Amino acid sequence: MQTKRAVSLEAWLTLRAIEGVGDHTILALVREWQSPDAVLRASTDELIQRGCSRRLADVIRRGPDREACQRIERELTAIERKQIDVRTILDSSYPTRLRMIPDPPPVLYVSGTLNQSDELAVAVVGARRATASGRLVTESLANGLAGAGLTIVSGLARGVDAAAHRGALAAGGRTIAVLGCGIGQTYPPEHGRLRHEIEERGAILSELPFEAPPHSGHFPRRNRIISGLSLGVVVTEAAIDSGSLITARLAAEQGREVFAVPGFVKSETSRGTNALIKEGAALIECAQDVIDAIAPQLEPALRARLSCPPREKQTGDRFGNQEQLVYDALSYDPLTVDHLIEQTRLPVASVMVSLLSLELRQRVRQLPGQRYLKL
Amino acid sequence: MQTKRAVSLEAWLTLRAIEGVGDHTILALVREWQSPDAVLRASTDELIQRGCSRRLADVIRRGPDREACQRIERELTAIERKQIDVRTILDSSYPTRLRMIPDPPPVLYVSGTLNQSDELAVAVVGARRATASGRLVTESLANGLAGAGLTIVSGLARGVDAAAHRGALAAGGRTIAVLGCGIGQTYPPEHGRLRHEIEERGAILSELPFEAPPHSGHFPRRNRIISGLSLGVVVTEAAIDSGSLITARLAAEQGREVFAVPGFVKSETSRGTNALIKEGAALIECAQDVIDAIAPQLEPALRARLSCPPREKQTGDRFGNQEQLVYDALSYDPLTVDHLIEQTRLPVASVMVSLLSLELRQRVRQLPGQRYLKL
Repeated sequence: MQTKRAVSLEAWLTLRAIEGVGDHTILALVREWQSPDAVLRASTDELIQRGCSRRLADVIRRGPDREACQRIERELTAIERKQIDVRTILDSSYPTRLRMIPDPPPVLYVSGTLNQSDELAVAVVGARRATASGRLVTESLANGLAGAGLTIVSGLARGVDAAAHRGALAAGGRTIAVLGCGIGQTYPPEHGRLRHEIEERGAILSELPFEAPPHSGHFPRRNRIISGLSLGVVVTEAAIDSGSLITARLAAEQGREVFAVPGFVKSETSRGTNALIKEGAALIECAQDVIDAIAPQLEPALRARLSCPPREKQTGDRFGNQEQLVYDALSYDPLTVDHLIEQTRLPVASVMVSLLSLELRQRVRQLPGQRYLKL
Repeated sequence: MQTKRAVSLEAWLTLRAIEGVGDHTILALVREWQSPDAVLRASTDELIQRGCSRRLADVIRRGPDREACQRIERELTAIERKQIDVRTILDSSYPTRLRMIPDPPPVLYVSGTLNQSDELAVAVVGARRATASGRLVTESLANGLAGAGLTIVSGLARGVDAAAHRGALAAGGRTIAVLGCGIGQTYPPEHGRLRHEIEERGAILSELPFEAPPHSGHFPRRNRIISGLSLGVVVTEAAIDSGSLITARLAAEQGREVFAVPGFVKSETSRGTNALIKEGAALIECAQDVIDAIAPQLEPALRARLSCPPREKQTGDRFGNQEQLVYDALSYDPLTVDHLIEQTRLPVASVMVSLLSLELRQRVRQLPGQRYLKL
């Protein structure tokens, strides 16, 4: 079995390595011949009989060039050494929802685990240059969704993506990162530890050759996998004309529901989400809003797996006088302690005590450089 | 004519001053008898013949009490002395759109001018405790709408209302304030000068007796006039469960389109507007969005009066390095110079020069206390 699978994988990679044979052709050929090995074993005449052009038939018979063959060798070794799980479109364990998009990836490299519970997945994506408050909103949203039993799918990028993965992990939930590079690479490099945590409690996915470097051209294609795996796509912050908006529009074309978090009209990273809402995306403020929207569309068996967390408190508990002063002086943009002291005209000690008390009640978060953010 | 009119006005006020005769009854009686004088001249039997209960007929025949009669005298004197224009539902100059709501005010006191161009009106309302950035967004929106030829209707309240009136005045446009007190009063008192400016370039309206004090019970009824006069209602900032949301819902019941400016999900004054968008209000970011939505619904003659301003610039012109640093450190919440110096680590002089330059390019606004706000 192991051998058959390895042979089959080699055939997939060989077919894909042939210059001039793209995903679309591979899917058509494999659909026709039932396996990539059969395609590779077929004669030119047989290929032509089943609808290939002479040029394509010749190209397939010739196979990949020498360099590509060496790369496939290296790739097979690396897949075995790093225990990468490769799933092809013919495998029953290939993600169900992804299989149904118009252009599913023929081959999917998986590091970590991909399991049945990941059928209940929601994508959370957005700006790399997210604001501090945008990252917090993303984290809290992903946390709530993961806590309800949804797998959070995102792209391991800086900003919103990382916050989405972290929110899911903090809830003890599952999360999937789809890379825009080969699974042998980590991009951005500083997310090595985050990647490791995701592999422990979810999966890293890529459709690209093992060592493919990150390349801007890969990202739009990668995004169709993110939405393809998901029941819906949440955009928490996005600039106008950004990749996140492309993902959202692609998602809508795939029939996925699009959700957007609104923001201040003058904030660059809210222009995109506000634009999505104008175009018909659902405005959401918290995890429950997303759950309320997707739950009714689920088959009963899947819906039963969703646990509904209590609604977030909308109003705060009461503060003391000084705490209230400090809380009112805080902003959703980070402020320094000095700024808060000046604003409140309270003694340093009172401000520090109030901040600590607010922090314990999760109404403020301390950021590096003694800066504080309203929660 | 003057005398006939004065007699008729006295009859309106008399009818309204009778204990137990509300607006609904007045409208029904006047619709039946064609004038308030005729109602007051009718005998008990005649009143009963035309559908009044015996109790109501007796009450009308008895007329208002002595105290009320003295108040009407004072009111008529004040109306003449202050040159208040009183329009009743039977006057052809009564605002057309307002006449068609289910419960139009029978009598409308007008200080200033109300003219035909005010048929093209949009209400801009929202939180009294608006944020600094919310007030700016409101001002800019009202400015754009008034510049396009729309009259801005609001409630003279603190916060969003005042910003809406000011934005319209700054554009050289027209604006109408509907009071929640009698027209002889100004509430809040600090808006005396704003009121005067509105009277010069629009109108102050009230349906209440001349000296009626502001009373919380008046405001919800007042709001039906604000939306009744308007083609649509824009809410720029509003808390959840606030009066502005009630106005918006009333407006929707009157068949008016509701527009809301989205905001950060954790900001109290955006919770209401985000909720409105969830409920189906149109998300708008600028004046043009509102114009695009209402123009197609207008009769061609009215539409021709709308001039369309150019779309606001979405992206800024380029800044110098230091300017960019300062601009990036700014926030949509006011920040002190000290905070900006600390954030940018630039010398004081550079920060000040950059702020001045940004101010000249209208990218920052200085607020009292050397605080600065990103625009």
